[in-house]
Amino acid sequence: MTDRRDQVDYVSGRTRLFGIVGHPIEQVRSPEMITAEMTGRGHDAVLVPLHVLPEDFDTVLPQLMQVRNLGGLVFTIPFKARACALADELLPQARVIGAINALARGRDGRWRGEIFDGLGCVEAFRRRGIPLAGKRVLLLGAGGAGSAIAAAVAAERPTQLTIYDVDGVRAADVAARVAGAHRGVAVHAGAADADSADVLLNASPVGMLDDARLPIPVDSLPRELVVFDAIVKPERTPLLALAEQCGCATVGGREMMRGQIARMVDFFYA
Amino acid sequence: MTDRRDQVDYVSGRTRLFGIVGHPIEQVRSPEMITAEMTGRGHDAVLVPLHVLPEDFDTVLPQLMQVRNLGGLVFTIPFKARACALADELLPQARVIGAINALARGRDGRWRGEIFDGLGCVEAFRRRGIPLAGKRVLLLGAGGAGSAIAAAVAAERPTQLTIYDVDGVRAADVAARVAGAHRGVAVHAGAADADSADVLLNASPVGMLDDARLPIPVDSLPRELVVFDAIVKPERTPLLALAEQCGCATVGGREMMRGQIARMVDFFYA
Repeated sequence: MTDRRDQVDYVSGRTRLFGIVGHPIEQVRSPEMITAEMTGRGHDAVLVPLHVLPEDFDTVLPQLMQVRNLGGLVFTIPFKARACALADELLPQARVIGAINALARGRDGRWRGEIFDGLGCVEAFRRRGIPLAGKRVLLLGAGGAGSAIAAAVAAERPTQLTIYDVDGVRAADVAARVAGAHRGVAVHAGAADADSADVLLNASPVGMLDDARLPIPVDSLPRELVVFDAIVKPERTPLLALAEQCGCATVGGREMMRGQIARMVDFFYA
Repeated sequence: MTDRRDQVDYVSGRTRLFGIVGHPIEQVRSPEMITAEMTGRGHDAVLVPLHVLPEDFDTVLPQLMQVRNLGGLVFTIPFKARACALADELLPQARVIGAINALARGRDGRWRGEIFDGLGCVEAFRRRGIPLAGKRVLLLGAGGAGSAIAAAVAAERPTQLTIYDVDGVRAADVAARVAGAHRGVAVHAGAADADSADVLLNASPVGMLDDARLPIPVDSLPRELVVFDAIVKPERTPLLALAEQCGCATVGGREMMRGQIARMVDFFYA
């Protein structure tokens, strides 16, 4: 022990604990990223991986939440929908989507659940000073990320939100749920027509990793279009590369991830 | 996020999780010290504080142990005795003492419990090259730390182990339990007579913090006596100060703590 430090400086008995619950768990990035956001704001906190098997979830989680210095939990695959049952209260996005990815212990001891995937997208636009209010938005993909983005974007009051998915029934279902929560916004399932949109949002998996395809069958994009891609890897997806070539403003998946992390930490320390 | 690191390097989805369970929890030092020992050995691991209320212990702990990347737990006040029930198997010190302060998940999935307070004392002597085998040992204090030290020291085969406590019944009880487990060692409760000892071990709280008293009523100590004090604060207790003045070799509470941490991490990664 004499030739190395006998203490670390990032965890102590006073450290507030947070966790990410998933199966599998090794691939998650929340531990290093959310911990950095919390400590960067001056909080004595750490977010650790918690590998819980699906068959153990319903018995383990309520007991884990009894650990008194646990401040909050993040949920990833396959627990986002099941985690709703753990919350004393669901916040607006979670109520529309029926899923949460964060649960925070309030000062009053009540657990509040919210889903931040979509709010991260909205936050990325806000940080770049690009308004969504009053715009015609085309969203590609109505899966988990897509439905969360639909709900969060609708709350920004675009004039129109068109949702396209290869599974038309899924697109119509998400559109109906989001429309029901945002009466003043024209939300509907429809075709992937970029020419009649101001903002194009890709929340489909097309273009991820080594997939060289575009999520929309076009050769070019109008230069006034703002193009967003939720994909994190690669950072420059085929869609974003085309958008840049066409002179469009672009917003990337990492910006959404950073926006989501910031909003989650706001939520954990509200 | 641009003006500070957006990732920390000490926790990720692959990090193995350890915890210390206690009530209260803020004062514990295991998070910074055991984490340093684990990472210093090259393990991707972190030990976090887990504040569990006594009324929640029996329901929370069995579920917490279902978290798959949890490698082990440390127990502190008031849980060392109750934690025995969580182990599939108790190791030798724990069987004698009826308490554990560490629980490790083995490669076979079985949870093994052991108490390392006394083993830390023995490890401190070993690291200093001071044998306990064949020596006459006088132990002051038969509480939690004292009983663990008695059991661990007896396993080193001293010729004689005399246990003194202000509560004579407690001393006799510990002596009987330790004697039963170590038939070849003369273990008995007795007077605090340093003149008939080779090694003096203080495991009583006398001399802690601002307490200027000696745990034994003497003005001097034989210079051949080896003097140990389990107290961590202050590092130089009144007993150790007197021992130094008398030319005795001394071993301190921090050396015991470091020894205990090393043995615990051996156990977690056995």
